[in-house]
Amino acid sequence: MRVYLDNAATTPLDPEVIAVMTDVMKNQYGNPSAIHGPGREVRTLIEEARKTIARLLNVTPSEIFFTSGGTEADNMAIRCSVEDLEVTRIISSPIEHHAVLHTVQELANKSKVKLEMVKLTPTGQIDMVDLERLLHTGKDKTLVSLMHANNEVGSLLDLDAVGAMCQKYGALFHSDTVQTMAHYRFDLQKTHVDFLAASAHKFNGPKGVGFIYISNRNKIKPLLTGGSQERNMRSGTENVYGIVGLAKAFQISHDQMDEKTALISGLKNYMKERLKAEVDGVRFNGEENGLYTVLSVSFPPSKVADMLLFKLDIEGVSASGGSACSSGTDIGSHVMSALNADPSRPNVRFSFGKFNTKEDIDFTIEVLKKMHNTAVAT
Amino acid sequence: MRVYLDNAATTPLDPEVIAVMTDVMKNQYGNPSAIHGPGREVRTLIEEARKTIARLLNVTPSEIFFTSGGTEADNMAIRCSVEDLEVTRIISSPIEHHAVLHTVQELANKSKVKLEMVKLTPTGQIDMVDLERLLHTGKDKTLVSLMHANNEVGSLLDLDAVGAMCQKYGALFHSDTVQTMAHYRFDLQKTHVDFLAASAHKFNGPKGVGFIYISNRNKIKPLLTGGSQERNMRSGTENVYGIVGLAKAFQISHDQMDEKTALISGLKNYMKERLKAEVDGVRFNGEENGLYTVLSVSFPPSKVADMLLFKLDIEGVSASGGSACSSGTDIGSHVMSALNADPSRPNVRFSFGKFNTKEDIDFTIEVLKKMHNTAVAT
Repeated sequence: MRVYLDNAATTPLDPEVIAVMTDVMKNQYGNPSAIHGPGREVRTLIEEARKTIARLLNVTPSEIFFTSGGTEADNMAIRCSVEDLEVTRIISSPIEHHAVLHTVQELANKSKVKLEMVKLTPTGQIDMVDLERLLHTGKDKTLVSLMHANNEVGSLLDLDAVGAMCQKYGALFHSDTVQTMAHYRFDLQKTHVDFLAASAHKFNGPKGVGFIYISNRNKIKPLLTGGSQERNMRSGTENVYGIVGLAKAFQISHDQMDEKTALISGLKNYMKERLKAEVDGVRFNGEENGLYTVLSVSFPPSKVADMLLFKLDIEGVSASGGSACSSGTDIGSHVMSALNADPSRPNVRFSFGKFNTKEDIDFTIEVLKKMHNTAVAT
Repeated sequence: MRVYLDNAATTPLDPEVIAVMTDVMKNQYGNPSAIHGPGREVRTLIEEARKTIARLLNVTPSEIFFTSGGTEADNMAIRCSVEDLEVTRIISSPIEHHAVLHTVQELANKSKVKLEMVKLTPTGQIDMVDLERLLHTGKDKTLVSLMHANNEVGSLLDLDAVGAMCQKYGALFHSDTVQTMAHYRFDLQKTHVDFLAASAHKFNGPKGVGFIYISNRNKIKPLLTGGSQERNMRSGTENVYGIVGLAKAFQISHDQMDEKTALISGLKNYMKERLKAEVDGVRFNGEENGLYTVLSVSFPPSKVADMLLFKLDIEGVSASGGSACSSGTDIGSHVMSALNADPSRPNVRFSFGKFNTKEDIDFTIEVLKKMHNTAVAT
């Protein structure tokens, strides 16, 4: 048996998404920039995908631009704000995804911006008092880049509150919404943000495609220059199958939002309760009411502590030690370090998706119990 | 009947490519950066794809990096050379693809580099004497960026000669090989280049994926920062289906190289001969022995001149006026302008692929004859 509890790293494709992508691969071959029939048909598919996303976020299609994924979208928001919107200070946090953290650090290292890190609460939430203190200080044109949900511990940001605060102090606001887009509903007429980044493969869409929301207020120049696709904001022949798949997955996620949220929240809570009851000494990282797809568990010190993920994998359970993007390396999680996690206690991120079942959790609990008992016995 | 003669803009997917991509979409869902089984399986697919490409170009896998396409690869080569390799002068040409031209122009406009344009011959070839004169002049660290084959008129660059010249003068050499990769064989142990850009959808692979070859000699930093994928050279969760499809299409193209070249060259020559015989006043742009996939035709002035492409489309023939990336706009072709084309003569690019047949050409000739005669009659 193979149980996949690493849905925050990536999700399996929805069969309906595969179907629409395969249909385009087989039947639509034009270049969307071409003026002839086969080109115009493909262009129509792209514009329909854009409209679907815009409608569900309550924005205009002219504010949605397709990218190669969340990382490019994050890079674009941050780099273009500095290059084109005269941003000279960035306020961010030490627990951002590397797509944000490495980008803001590079810009700071090159002295293109001042970088200020907002304080965190012990559960990984942004200290809102500290954020306001930072915004109140200095006269630099400021970009605030804070993720909506932390991908490792699941702490959530109050987007409305931060958006309002940024508006009050004249700061731009970018949020990496890679973990929350299509998992929560957004109404961007009510929430004040300048940039959002999204990635299709986090909501049962394809890898290699995402989008950036750019408020019409902001006029930036492209990060990738060339053939002027995406109304000159993002050059390169469009990943048509990916874009169509993204929109389909986005639509399905919204259609299924309520039952998906209930199912996944239920699985998370069930796993949490069983862990508390059956594995001595477990603790949970992050806030109590965080991202419903992520359960970050701190296991007690044991002889298998440093091999916990490998042993889970051998037993058939896929989980993660941190974000997938760094879990293949020996570098420990920057999120856990920033939250001062006890290094003797291994942290495992279990993350859930709509294809998971109660049986998946039961299997995982049995594996963890066996492992834990063995570890205690040896 | 619909005849597709716009293969330089994009090509239909090979059914075998669709098959391998669909298989990955259905059966491989892990994040290649994850340490567990499903992740490692996907990582293996990516590394096998990389090896396939490296083997066919006679380079090491560590010199191949996957990107979202040719545009990103071109941007990466040029922007990172300036940012990380102390390039202060770029030598390029006015007939480069916009992915190169707009990028070098932007860098010049921002005073990051001096930009020098090499002279062209009337058929769109690089004036090698002028190139050597430019390389001989000045002491700036120089990047030469010249495309292997022009995408509109098909003129070819002698990569070996330019590579040797760049080596002699200590210049870096980048070539946009988007139109030639997988249409010609490359042996990069014999040809001295620093960077090459390729795009899968030009050789019956998928849109939205490409690669950059970066010689091991050059140590650059990533354009997109984040999760350190692609050995920290290109962050973002990999477009796995795209990468697998790219490698499959690349392998097939090489397996079929000889017969594909013969078939497509034959179709091009057949069309050329029939046009000469049956449409009065046609001329051909570009060099006699240029890119075998492209036939750029200059039609005589007529009442349908400015509507020629639209009328071809209505009659069922997909062709292009220039590159697809600009043909949807009203801007005339920058290539034709640079080559001082007569503005009263409409230019049409017919470009051929392995799925074209002699019947496609016959049909197109009949349409052109009818159109031409009608135009003369009215």
